[in-house]
Amino acid sequence: MIKNLNKFKKICHKINLQLSKSNLQFQTFGNVSQRIDSKHFIIKPSGANLDKISCKNYPIVRITNNKVVQGNLKPSSDTPTHSEIYKMDENINGITHAHSKYVAIWSQSQKKIPILGTTHADYWKNDIPITKKLTKKEITNNYEKNIGISIARVFTKKSKLKESPGVLVVNHGGFCWGKSAEESFLNFQRLEFIAELGYKTLIINKQTKMSKSLVRKHFYRKHGSKAYYGQK
Amino acid sequence: MIKNLNKFKKICHKINLQLSKSNLQFQTFGNVSQRIDSKHFIIKPSGANLDKISCKNYPIVRITNNKVVQGNLKPSSDTPTHSEIYKMDENINGITHAHSKYVAIWSQSQKKIPILGTTHADYWKNDIPITKKLTKKEITNNYEKNIGISIARVFTKKSKLKESPGVLVVNHGGFCWGKSAEESFLNFQRLEFIAELGYKTLIINKQTKMSKSLVRKHFYRKHGSKAYYGQK
Amino acid sequence: MIKNLNKFKKICHKINLQLSKSNLQFQTFGNVSQRIDSKHFIIKPSGANLDKISCKNYPIVRITNNKVVQGNLKPSSDTPTHSEIYKMDENINGITHAHSKYVAIWSQSQKKIPILGTTHADYWKNDIPITKKLTKKEITNNYEKNIGISIARVFTKKSKLKESPGVLVVNHGGFCWGKSAEESFLNFQRLEFIAELGYKTLIINKQTKMSKSLVRKHFYRKHGSKAYYGQK
Amino acid sequence: MIKNLNKFKKICHKINLQLSKSNLQFQTFGNVSQRIDSKHFIIKPSGANLDKISCKNYPIVRITNNKVVQGNLKPSSDTPTHSEIYKMDENINGITHAHSKYVAIWSQSQKKIPILGTTHADYWKNDIPITKKLTKKEITNNYEKNIGISIARVFTKKSKLKESPGVLVVNHGGFCWGKSAEESFLNFQRLEFIAELGYKTLIINKQTKMSKSLVRKHFYRKHGSKAYYGQK
Repeated sequence: MIKNLNKFKKICHKINLQLSKSNLQFQTFGNVSQRIDSKHFIIKPSGANLDKISCKNYPIVRITNNKVVQGNLKPSSDTPTHSEIYKMDENINGITHAHSKYVAIWSQSQKKIPILGTTHADYWKNDIPITKKLTKKEITNNYEKNIGISIARVFTKKSKLKESPGVLVVNHGGFCWGKSAEESFLNFQRLEFIAELGYKTLIINKQTKMSKSLVRKHFYRKHGSKAYYGQK
Repeated sequence: MIKNLNKFKKICHKINLQLSKSNLQFQTFGNVSQRIDSKHFIIKPSGANLDKISCKNYPIVRITNNKVVQGNLKPSSDTPTHSEIYKMDENINGITHAHSKYVAIWSQSQKKIPILGTTHADYWKNDIPITKKLTKKEITNNYEKNIGISIARVFTKKSKLKESPGVLVVNHGGFCWGKSAEESFLNFQRLEFIAELGYKTLIINKQTKMSKSLVRKHFYRKHGSKAYYGQK
Repeated sequence: MIKNLNKFKKICHKINLQLSKSNLQFQTFGNVSQRIDSKHFIIKPSGANLDKISCKNYPIVRITNNKVVQGNLKPSSDTPTHSEIYKMDENINGITHAHSKYVAIWSQSQKKIPILGTTHADYWKNDIPITKKLTKKEITNNYEKNIGISIARVFTKKSKLKESPGVLVVNHGGFCWGKSAEESFLNFQRLEFIAELGYKTLIINKQTKMSKSLVRKHFYRKHGSKAYYGQK
Repeated sequence: MIKNLNKFKKICHKINLQLSKSNLQFQTFGNVSQRIDSKHFIIKPSGANLDKISCKNYPIVRITNNKVVQGNLKPSSDTPTHSEIYKMDENINGITHAHSKYVAIWSQSQKKIPILGTTHADYWKNDIPITKKLTKKEITNNYEKNIGISIARVFTKKSKLKESPGVLVVNHGGFCWGKSAEESFLNFQRLEFIAELGYKTLIINKQTKMSKSLVRKHFYRKHGSKAYYGQK
């Protein structure tokens, strides 16, 4: 028996609803999942109208093999990508996927987002990475799982994962994560905002550079043991 | 006696209202029609304030000659364009026309929208086509009918129609279709969203290309007998 | 005694409120006036919070000398510009002035808006004109009146006025007019929309051109004795 | 005992709430302070959810040493920057800081905002200045105080301060001030609006120039003893 299952289901539904009503989501594109223990997570049903379903309908998925262990609705078609992301680190407890405008635009442009300002440095310590293109074979078989593997390839060093709560998937959109579904959603809002600032900054100044010390100052003002932003 | 006439009138009014309150419509520009049988469709009255009319006022038009067979309000001036689109395929049961921002911008720029990302490939299997310019004679006589004919010229192969639920009309705006008025409206929202993504992607990367296998993967994930997106 | 004075005051207040809540207005910038007879008009009080005043407070201004003949609030500082516009044609019965985004951007860029699409041709038969820069002397003395005179210089031929319900004022913003305050407001919404479409079209295609016959078709579909758009 | 303390706390909370619900603020970024006497000001608590706190919780800070003299919540991490701004001029009674889109974009682009139109000249008499980059040492120690010092360096001449109610901080965002928290917020809205107009104007016309006499006319129409905009 999984602990706090109902609580997790409510949270997962709540953040999916929040995403669906935010500027990040277009029509039914996008999904949020919430890890419930080391081996399982809850995820939005595929192509569902969230106003018509209850959190009880959410499928529970086993990370190792993407099987639905509870729930009668089909999970999001992006489920195997979520599984690969959960495998990257046991501290990832929530994932948000969306095709928001500037995230999709950078993804389609096949470029990483350069670090140009303090708003970016508050959350990502480097350029925001983008996955490599999949091969024809990777697209044809196990497509969604291979997207997840291409994300994991970006973060082969664990340290990199600590400095990057999200990634662009080439030609597609973005994935963000966090210690809860809610944090992954907040990180996605940040990703979209940073993506728009970076896009528009480069249009008027292609030479702009930011000093490493300013990046470090902002990143560690909000992260790690010496963070001093916010209430204790 | 036409079957389900009142139901169709309610649907047509509902989707016209939805369009008028969406970001796709500016002032009274734009209109939606709903086919009611093989020979007729219902369409928004010309320049009407939708909050003041009832669905009973919607005119019914005969496809072959654009005559109003029921209803006392003048149909949209774009009516003959709708007729030509309905003639293209008996499975087209609803049409949405609008001048939304990025659709109008691409139309004014006289360019098709190149396929640059998976959001595009989810609905259009190729670049989104644009009609050829009309001749002076085609503009002067039967202008709106000739727009429809210029659309039909884009889809002389039936197979192309299955891979493209809408088109740009040069210098003007767009038309989308579907198996109902509602689906044509959803397709128009997709067209506008894809148009904005494509526009902004090209501004930062003019060389971007998408692999054919990725296009096929996304298109057939949502269309045809092997689609696996959404609930059964 | 002026006929229908209260009715006109209510209309003028209503359209000023509509402007202030629309995307066209920023803070208290912008104003609407309504002609009440051949010699007078009502106009928004200068820098007023419209939610706190009644339509009774609106000042009535004499066109010939800009004197307030009724009302205890100071009229908009742009009042002398309105007067010059009313002098251009007795059929101008309402005027809207705003610094909406794309109107201000074109004005600041010191360029007329080229005619690039049918949405433009539905309302303006040519490029949307921009006033010439004022001389230092014209700026120092009677500035607002001289803006009005610079607008009138654009329309020395009466025929041009029939084909252009508004103008850009260089470095500043726009003025639109119509047969009522409401129509001038609708024309301003059109100006802003056309300004945005034109701006974004030119960014992706600087060579785009529209045929004269298509312009004429659209303009006369909505204007003049052969118009066939809308209900009778 | 500080005079009107409760009144000031209410105002400060009100304007912080207004900022948080405006288009200027993203998530919890941004803060407003209100001077309460020559030596102290009230400021938003760091990273606080404003809907959950009362104005009583706002910390009171001493300008000379940034110590909290009342209140149990940590003040905004930007507090030392506010202190340096209050030191510039005793007539500065309110400060708003935000990372709104176009303000952040100009800051990231490391450029001042050129004066291109009357909307700009209504509030800033010259280009909107940007601070110089901090040295590595200035970033590492007393970072937020050094930002304030870099702002003060822009305004070493008192006259310049009268002609500029705000500034860009390189790579970061903006600060605006005024005779009250509310005025500083209104000035920030103006900064964002002007930043957007300037950005988009330069994209279509890099050569645009505005005459000095037009700048002076607009600035002094709203400021100084000869201002004639608004009600007396």
